[in-house]
Amino acid sequence: MELLKRKILQECRVEGQDILKVDSFLNHQMDIELFNAIGRAFKSRFENKPISKILTIEASGIGIACIAAQYFKVPVVFAKKTESRNLDKEVYESKVISFTKNKEYIIKVSKKYLSSSDNILIIDDFLAKGQALSGLIDIITQANANLIGVGIVIEKSFQKGGKDLRNQGIQIESLAMIKSLENNKVTFEEEGRKEK
Amino acid sequence: MELLKRKILQECRVEGQDILKVDSFLNHQMDIELFNAIGRAFKSRFENKPISKILTIEASGIGIACIAAQYFKVPVVFAKKTESRNLDKEVYESKVISFTKNKEYIIKVSKKYLSSSDNILIIDDFLAKGQALSGLIDIITQANANLIGVGIVIEKSFQKGGKDLRNQGIQIESLAMIKSLENNKVTFEEEGRKEK
Repeated sequence: MELLKRKILQECRVEGQDILKVDSFLNHQMDIELFNAIGRAFKSRFENKPISKILTIEASGIGIACIAAQYFKVPVVFAKKTESRNLDKEVYESKVISFTKNKEYIIKVSKKYLSSSDNILIIDDFLAKGQALSGLIDIITQANANLIGVGIVIEKSFQKGGKDLRNQGIQIESLAMIKSLENNKVTFEEEGRKEK
Repeated sequence: MELLKRKILQECRVEGQDILKVDSFLNHQMDIELFNAIGRAFKSRFENKPISKILTIEASGIGIACIAAQYFKVPVVFAKKTESRNLDKEVYESKVISFTKNKEYIIKVSKKYLSSSDNILIIDDFLAKGQALSGLIDIITQANANLIGVGIVIEKSFQKGGKDLRNQGIQIESLAMIKSLENNKVTFEEEGRKEK
């Protein structure tokens, strides 16, 4: 998605070998016009798929998921993060390790809002090692819901989360795929190679 | 806002004297069509005001703020919650006590995304004792930005946060004002009395 890539090149900061800061438009300040373009891009990548609900995770997935949901005309559910497991029978839970924050947390979704009749599109801002995404997929599996696919704004394809999950047959559509952040420089994957 | 009040009466659960659960449409599962009606209602209540940015707080304010921002054509910034203060000079911080969660946390906004030239509309899902809102106003004051007003989806007017802040001259527009949750029954304020 050219508009997104230009925005990344114009406004990002690279820290070290693997941290990309995009908080001027994606996950602290949010550019709603760009979010609409992102929503339309997700819609075109999942055109004609029978999606009944979008699932995301707090906090920075929520804005993107809500704007995108307008194009799919479906509700959004966001998984809540907590640091403790409290044996609540009314929720689906999964354990997620955050490498950027160096901690482990539990994500939860109320059983009321995911069911076996749901066809789910997951939307999130980043995909790197795939921890949060695997947690969301685990919750969808527990609910016996059907995973249609995953829409990601920025994938760090030099980390292996996306590759592993695609190898399981999951359709993951990432609007910008970053091959490398070496030498403080953002290098994108060439278009057309992204599904390999 | 009649549509919102109907939705509350149809889908809420009341717990004890003061807890209103609306997670089927507002803060866990999110009804995006309703969010659009909410966004239009905020726009009509702040019509012709020179708003340059919407400020909200993670997590459940984000979806509402992003949808509403489409009607104002401005970016959204969300304050991040953390449990520790780490003396970061690049952020505005304020301390907030959560009575529902019985803990204290710090909210933060990067100094890059609030400035003295900004005219801010705060949007959030709930207003009760006004703790989170006071924290956001504190941050706006630190940034020397201009607070235009506050848009709230549900105000518990039997708690005094809204009254105290209106007495300071702040324009707070709440789309549903709840006078009482006694006896497991939602009683709304009569329309027209809400600004008193």
